[in-house]
Amino acid sequence: MIFEPIFLDGNSDIPMYRQLYDSIREKICGGKLAVGEKMPSIRRISEELGVSRTTAEQAYQQLCVEGYLISRPQSGYYVEAAVTEKKAPPAEEPSEGESFSDVLFDFGSRYIDSRGSDLDLWRKYVRSVLSREDTVTSYGHYQGEPELRRELARYGMLLRGVNATPDRIVIGAGVQPLLSLICGLLGERAGRIGIESPCFPHAERVFRDFRLPISELGQDKYGVIPQEVYSSGANVLYLNPSNTESLGRPMPVSRRAELLEWAERTDGLIIEDDYNGALRFKSRPVPAMQGMGGTGKVIYLGSFSKLLMPSVRISYMVLPYGLAELYRSRGASYNQTSSKIEQLALAEYIRDGHIEKRLRRLRKIYSEKSQQLLTLLNEYFGRAVKIRLAETALCAEISLNSGKNARELAEIALAGGVRVIPMDAGEGSAKLRLSFAGIQPEKMPEGVKLLHSIIIPYCR
Amino acid sequence: MIFEPIFLDGNSDIPMYRQLYDSIREKICGGKLAVGEKMPSIRRISEELGVSRTTAEQAYQQLCVEGYLISRPQSGYYVEAAVTEKKAPPAEEPSEGESFSDVLFDFGSRYIDSRGSDLDLWRKYVRSVLSREDTVTSYGHYQGEPELRRELARYGMLLRGVNATPDRIVIGAGVQPLLSLICGLLGERAGRIGIESPCFPHAERVFRDFRLPISELGQDKYGVIPQEVYSSGANVLYLNPSNTESLGRPMPVSRRAELLEWAERTDGLIIEDDYNGALRFKSRPVPAMQGMGGTGKVIYLGSFSKLLMPSVRISYMVLPYGLAELYRSRGASYNQTSSKIEQLALAEYIRDGHIEKRLRRLRKIYSEKSQQLLTLLNEYFGRAVKIRLAETALCAEISLNSGKNARELAEIALAGGVRVIPMDAGEGSAKLRLSFAGIQPEKMPEGVKLLHSIIIPYCR
Repeated sequence: MIFEPIFLDGNSDIPMYRQLYDSIREKICGGKLAVGEKMPSIRRISEELGVSRTTAEQAYQQLCVEGYLISRPQSGYYVEAAVTEKKAPPAEEPSEGESFSDVLFDFGSRYIDSRGSDLDLWRKYVRSVLSREDTVTSYGHYQGEPELRRELARYGMLLRGVNATPDRIVIGAGVQPLLSLICGLLGERAGRIGIESPCFPHAERVFRDFRLPISELGQDKYGVIPQEVYSSGANVLYLNPSNTESLGRPMPVSRRAELLEWAERTDGLIIEDDYNGALRFKSRPVPAMQGMGGTGKVIYLGSFSKLLMPSVRISYMVLPYGLAELYRSRGASYNQTSSKIEQLALAEYIRDGHIEKRLRRLRKIYSEKSQQLLTLLNEYFGRAVKIRLAETALCAEISLNSGKNARELAEIALAGGVRVIPMDAGEGSAKLRLSFAGIQPEKMPEGVKLLHSIIIPYCR
Repeated sequence: MIFEPIFLDGNSDIPMYRQLYDSIREKICGGKLAVGEKMPSIRRISEELGVSRTTAEQAYQQLCVEGYLISRPQSGYYVEAAVTEKKAPPAEEPSEGESFSDVLFDFGSRYIDSRGSDLDLWRKYVRSVLSREDTVTSYGHYQGEPELRRELARYGMLLRGVNATPDRIVIGAGVQPLLSLICGLLGERAGRIGIESPCFPHAERVFRDFRLPISELGQDKYGVIPQEVYSSGANVLYLNPSNTESLGRPMPVSRRAELLEWAERTDGLIIEDDYNGALRFKSRPVPAMQGMGGTGKVIYLGSFSKLLMPSVRISYMVLPYGLAELYRSRGASYNQTSSKIEQLALAEYIRDGHIEKRLRRLRKIYSEKSQQLLTLLNEYFGRAVKIRLAETALCAEISLNSGKNARELAEIALAGGVRVIPMDAGEGSAKLRLSFAGIQPEKMPEGVKLLHSIIIPYCR
């Protein structure tokens, strides 16, 4: 009898059916019950082991669901399969990479200035949305909440000159999910992507993940060179016209017009990533290309992380009519990625005019901080390095002559308590960026001084 | 003189520099100032128009930034480019698709039962996270918050038998961003994807967007047939073993073991999507394949939308060691998609044991509701249709003989005030699903009665 060695403990915390299930399963997997063997009936089990019929039924049912037993009508239960599970190795607690506790001066780009952050106001809006029951217990619209799309259409026009209607706006949790969506919508049409060099790495990552052919395009002082676009064979062009890396300033309108003409002539498509496009503080922001007559040929991408809270993952794109229609026809098979609560909070925040107030305040704060940082860098590094302001990136960049590369120098600085952002650069030279977004103004002088003392021994 | 027709209004709300900028830009774009023409100096402008030098400087600076003017050192300002912007058509207010106001009985899957929803508790956790300043004003960890990954490793082992360590867990805003990540990480290695037929459409969408070759695999009563996997040439297999559509029950362990053996033998990879895997209520959930010795060959995907709040977009995956290493080496070029606030709230919610309590409550609620719905369907449709419970999908499915297809029948039902979910089915037959997740129990009898009276005229 198979039941002799089964001991069920009525005082255990483990339910009786579970104890029974475990014992039988053990016997099956241990080979004590062979595949094909007939099991005792539920009635017999309950009598022999002194358990209720319900207990025996529950155990058998679970064994059937998992495929160990099979129930044959008018016949009974049989052993169906014996599977020996391998024991998993015990889980280790891994190290979580670098520790943040020893960073005395953080010129990294993880933070924004909390003085400009409207934290209390943002909390108020999130709380107000949280209190609506139907909102929290239902799924969001796949395209993004209609309330937010309406506000974004208005906001995009007002602040960035973007020509948008809510039905052509798609919201997503950052630029990457939106670019994935674009690559999927374009399908075969995305034959070759032209990018600036260097390109925003998170965008390039998506194109490479989709295994799309990529052309890195040469630039002159106005940005990407139109002739290079024509000769590259690219049919999609990814640009950051507000924030061109190599220029350190926005792309001038004449070049924008030439690239729009390329799109018009060749039936090409431009993806305009307007990262921090509204955040310029040295002059008024340049309006978006999309509004320069490029509605049919431009996908506009906008985001809020630096404007609102870095922790909030909300970006949006404005699609041309054709792509918007294709997207909506497939809508049911795309899920929204952005938090519904945060979307609705943002909609009310924009509606009440706070984003404009916030922009004004941030421009003032960043204008002052950038000036302070540039002055400090000139004071300490002035003779040794090239210093440049990357305005919408909210960074100052120093180019050093060093035997070490940027990553090594950044690690040395971090070990000494100063976080900076390493950038690629040519042989024998290293570019480091110092973000002035997160650090408090009163910590900047000491931070720059410490950085100088740490890295100057490695510079030529 | 170009300045004669410029009228600046000192009483206007529009800043003087902006008025001046607009006027000059208009002249350039209107062709009244030719490209190459020299502009008057800042001093002369300020004198002739009676504005401050700062005002004139600001206007010129903006025109330079945008590329309309160029400043030549020791010479002055020149017209650089004349770009005529096309006027964008006025934005229309679009229709937002179907209106929800006329749905009397909602058997759709947009909602969950609010009795099980712990709304107040969830609010409490979100509020507590919101009150931490550093949390809100900083970016999250690209891989997902360490606190949450630690809880998920524990939770996955406890509830699903998943063998996970926090360093191999990646969090994302839903299954789609995670699948995109997987496709990107696999690159060339994802030669051909084998899927169940029908497949979870949101997953199939991602594979199609990546233009990966797809094999739809035949199934017997245990699920995907191993021989078909071998002969398909697939090297990646996407499965929903807890929730196999065609079976209406979990895949038995014997089949799981056979498929794991396929992965072991052919160096294949299994993506195990454990959608609602923990939510079974008729029997104890079947543990995940990943824990059955498949740690090295299985990517495990878990999610929370039905378990927690549909509005919360948090899913996670457990990667095998090799892929986890590759991901971490590329980490800096992937952004986290899930809301940091909601991640941290979920971490504390799990830590305090609420997810287990909630699961127990939901299982009870859904067990009762499924029984009620099946009884009602039998009562009204019993003779005419086939009725089946799709347990983890939280739906009952009816198969009708009708001249109309499922989509048409669902539209007819919706027009009559009842929302149901259309499913594909063969010629002359239509499958409709009724979710019992969101609808209140007291509304079910009238809802099923109304649905019956609406669609029975269309059935044979």
